[in-house]
Amino acid sequence: MTETPHPLYAKHADTLAKALTAIKDRGYWSAYPESPSPRVYGETAAAEGEATFRSYLDGDFPLDQPGTGERVATEVSPFGIDLDVRYPHATPDALLTAATTALPAWRDAGPQTRLGVCLEILARLHAHVFEMAYAVQATSGQAFLMAFQAGGAHALDRALEALAYAYAEMTRHPATAEWEKPAGKGDPLRMTKTFHVVPRGVALVVGCNTFPTWNSYPGLFASLATGNPVVVKPHPRAVLPLAITVRYAREVLAEAGFDPNLVLLAAEAPGEGLASTLAVRPEVKIIDFTGSTEYGDWLEANARQAVVYTEKAGVNTIVVDSTDDFVGMCRNIGFSLTLYSGQMCTTPQNILIPAGGISTDQGHKSFDEVAAGIAATVGKLTVDPARAVEMTGAIVNDGVLGRLDEVAGLGEAVLESRTIEHPTYVGAVVRTPTIVKLGADAAQTYGREWFGPISFVIATDSTEHSLRIFRDTVGERGALTAAAYATDEKVLDAVETAAVETGVHLSCNLTGGVFVNQSAAFSDFHASGANPAANAALTDGAYVASRFRVVQSRRHTA
Amino acid sequence: MTETPHPLYAKHADTLAKALTAIKDRGYWSAYPESPSPRVYGETAAAEGEATFRSYLDGDFPLDQPGTGERVATEVSPFGIDLDVRYPHATPDALLTAATTALPAWRDAGPQTRLGVCLEILARLHAHVFEMAYAVQATSGQAFLMAFQAGGAHALDRALEALAYAYAEMTRHPATAEWEKPAGKGDPLRMTKTFHVVPRGVALVVGCNTFPTWNSYPGLFASLATGNPVVVKPHPRAVLPLAITVRYAREVLAEAGFDPNLVLLAAEAPGEGLASTLAVRPEVKIIDFTGSTEYGDWLEANARQAVVYTEKAGVNTIVVDSTDDFVGMCRNIGFSLTLYSGQMCTTPQNILIPAGGISTDQGHKSFDEVAAGIAATVGKLTVDPARAVEMTGAIVNDGVLGRLDEVAGLGEAVLESRTIEHPTYVGAVVRTPTIVKLGADAAQTYGREWFGPISFVIATDSTEHSLRIFRDTVGERGALTAAAYATDEKVLDAVETAAVETGVHLSCNLTGGVFVNQSAAFSDFHASGANPAANAALTDGAYVASRFRVVQSRRHTA
Repeated sequence: MTETPHPLYAKHADTLAKALTAIKDRGYWSAYPESPSPRVYGETAAAEGEATFRSYLDGDFPLDQPGTGERVATEVSPFGIDLDVRYPHATPDALLTAATTALPAWRDAGPQTRLGVCLEILARLHAHVFEMAYAVQATSGQAFLMAFQAGGAHALDRALEALAYAYAEMTRHPATAEWEKPAGKGDPLRMTKTFHVVPRGVALVVGCNTFPTWNSYPGLFASLATGNPVVVKPHPRAVLPLAITVRYAREVLAEAGFDPNLVLLAAEAPGEGLASTLAVRPEVKIIDFTGSTEYGDWLEANARQAVVYTEKAGVNTIVVDSTDDFVGMCRNIGFSLTLYSGQMCTTPQNILIPAGGISTDQGHKSFDEVAAGIAATVGKLTVDPARAVEMTGAIVNDGVLGRLDEVAGLGEAVLESRTIEHPTYVGAVVRTPTIVKLGADAAQTYGREWFGPISFVIATDSTEHSLRIFRDTVGERGALTAAAYATDEKVLDAVETAAVETGVHLSCNLTGGVFVNQSAAFSDFHASGANPAANAALTDGAYVASRFRVVQSRRHTA
Repeated sequence: MTETPHPLYAKHADTLAKALTAIKDRGYWSAYPESPSPRVYGETAAAEGEATFRSYLDGDFPLDQPGTGERVATEVSPFGIDLDVRYPHATPDALLTAATTALPAWRDAGPQTRLGVCLEILARLHAHVFEMAYAVQATSGQAFLMAFQAGGAHALDRALEALAYAYAEMTRHPATAEWEKPAGKGDPLRMTKTFHVVPRGVALVVGCNTFPTWNSYPGLFASLATGNPVVVKPHPRAVLPLAITVRYAREVLAEAGFDPNLVLLAAEAPGEGLASTLAVRPEVKIIDFTGSTEYGDWLEANARQAVVYTEKAGVNTIVVDSTDDFVGMCRNIGFSLTLYSGQMCTTPQNILIPAGGISTDQGHKSFDEVAAGIAATVGKLTVDPARAVEMTGAIVNDGVLGRLDEVAGLGEAVLESRTIEHPTYVGAVVRTPTIVKLGADAAQTYGREWFGPISFVIATDSTEHSLRIFRDTVGERGALTAAAYATDEKVLDAVETAAVETGVHLSCNLTGGVFVNQSAAFSDFHASGANPAANAALTDGAYVASRFRVVQSRRHTA
């Protein structure tokens, strides 16, 4: 039932081949330039993207899909930008019926055609990357450069990475095979076998507020490429980036001769709880979710008919033992804390430092000197409002502000959070990071996630003690990232063993232009699936292999 | 932390390479000869194997593992062979503590060493294949040849297939990678990345009575190769084959310098419910189970801390539309029904035939003629007791006998089940297959599994009607196999579409030496994971990819 590949497959075969090599080698590779420079994207790209973004505001988003005719508008920009984009609203029945109807032709088109179409969708999204960057900025609170990179180029790289894994997995077996078994003196037994790649059903992607595209694309494209129609349920405060995604995906699907209902937007009215309704429907066989531990756990426990991939909260940790580059260490950690005001799922929270201080290239540094060194970097990066906001962006929601208030009374602030007036966006809510000093006995505070610009410097008895705390908190609560600073290989080995045993990715002695909260597509795995912070990794074989099944038929060879 | 591979890796590298090629091509390949002929295995192998088997009877099974000192003996041979093998009994705590203690060194040994050791275990088991065949025969009720093949050679092939998938999956990423990102005019960013393959934890394998090795080996070896210690919980009536497996696995592990507690036998006392106790323990992270739908569903619902792979009950179906080889069709179906008295999870149960009959190379055949043709084959194969028992083997348990009684009153018997006196084993319980005629309206009977020598010929209005029944029963209850007989490609296409949409593997027009209930390792997938009969396939990427995780570390390149 597999047809000749669609011409889009040949069009993008080279990109796919490079991506397949990249996921195998896991060195550096990127398909989508991360610099928004006019030299890369042309003189008019930024202005055109911004214009398209602005055209969406205060209007009905252009999306022709099954719906009730009602519109919903739920977004509140952290920058105070008036959005009021109105999205079509649809019932679960309408969405799932449309998706289910679209499935058979997409399934029967085969892996090559599906990859060609998915790669064309990425190319189309890339052609609209500035429009996307403005949408991500406006809804997530990321500064523009970060929105362009994490929300645009890097999200597309992660999508391509997922497509490459999906393709590799679907084609690790041939579409047909000849089986010839010797039968003694008689003719051999000869069978022709056909292996069909069969999708699981409808896939549901539940997006988050902070990284609406980066966190959604791997699941979205892995499911779509393996034959599953995808219903995209955006976070109510970050709909636009995924609406734009769905718009162009549907455009490409229709152009390629497929039912555009293979990708559907499930925008919801306030308080509708649409994700929970969709998640337990029998048609939904795959769910990808990024967000709170509470809701991720709920999905895992209740959406039993589906394969559920979750990325949840965690307690990212740095173990500071010693360093041969004190300035570089403080600068690197401070930068990580400042980026997007610590609102990355990968931002370090707990910095474990021996109370007696550490040895460095500048001699012994006391606990307070280490804390002050990190705080000084954050202070320097945020002293000038105009420069500060290009790093911090804006605060995504009131929950973050609430935690900033709550944490203020829980320990001595090595660095206090400041409110900054945004030079461009009057309504922007900007807060700089706070760093709070805690004792090792304050596990009731540092032992859980404080999402936002909140970190703790924690005084431990020794690095051994730091490692026990590391194992306890990461083991119990999970983590997406860990880092260590040490000049002794034995200490680094001990941290690495602890990281392996708690299942968290580790960065050692970062002092330059690579930061613990950044992961590079095609090389770094994001999350491990080996601790409570996530049950899957972006992106590996396990992430794609269960999104389809192989169904075989066999007959005597003609 | 990955060491130089153990010499066993080099010893078996050629076998591994061939297996890796085989799983990629999925043509015919086998590593373990399926013929028990002295020309293959030597003149003395059979007698030695039987002697070793007999040495276990009425004695303490030689297994030195943590335990209470108590022994348990729970086996009842379908052949009436007096077994009374007494196995060491252990508490869940003792088993899980021992397994957990064994994990780190096995994890740190790396994929190559683990593969070398696992392949040596297979070689050791192969050296004892006759002993295993006698043990499988005695406990499962399979005839000797089948026990040798399915319980010995083919089980080892499936184990090797799982090992190849596990190795391919663990090594699809390099152990280390260099990442070099251009940084404009400055020096590029250079990072060295290490990717650790990290096991999930303790794996539990829950064996079944009918195929104690064939159904357990893929999970056992996939888990072990990916670094997980394995606790093997055999069916209380089929302990010996897995005890032998554990014995030789431990022997090889110890010889290779590893903790033998990486493989442990969890024999249980009658009514102990050890599988349920172990399955929900936090240490247990992977479970492989073959058995009833009820218990498989229980595991999936309750062992939430683990990845659970289940093979459960199903309703295997044949759609008969037409044939150009009536004799071959009847012979092939009849053979399938007779083999092991229909006690394979792959044996056809429902044979859907239009009430108006079918067209064949011998002209039109009425429904009754088709039914009679199949029944005649079964009759012929079972007319001579000495020959019959070499095909049927013995009845595995009283549940099968109960269903034979129950089905007798539910429809007209086209063929009645007969009791056969076994010429060799006085206490053997042997029954030949029954074939019962039902109307299409008897879905309350044929719509569920009747495990054992029970099949139904079901009169439908048409092949279209047959396909509706096929979709309904397989969709609701699942199936491991399906078959179709049709001379019209359009009909075959329609059945293939139904098979794809219900997720069941299909065999078309089998009339020769390949049977619907047989699947060949390295080529045929067993189960699909796409219908209620199983949530996984033996063996594919999805079957192995979630048994481990990759945890990375990175640092600036030195």
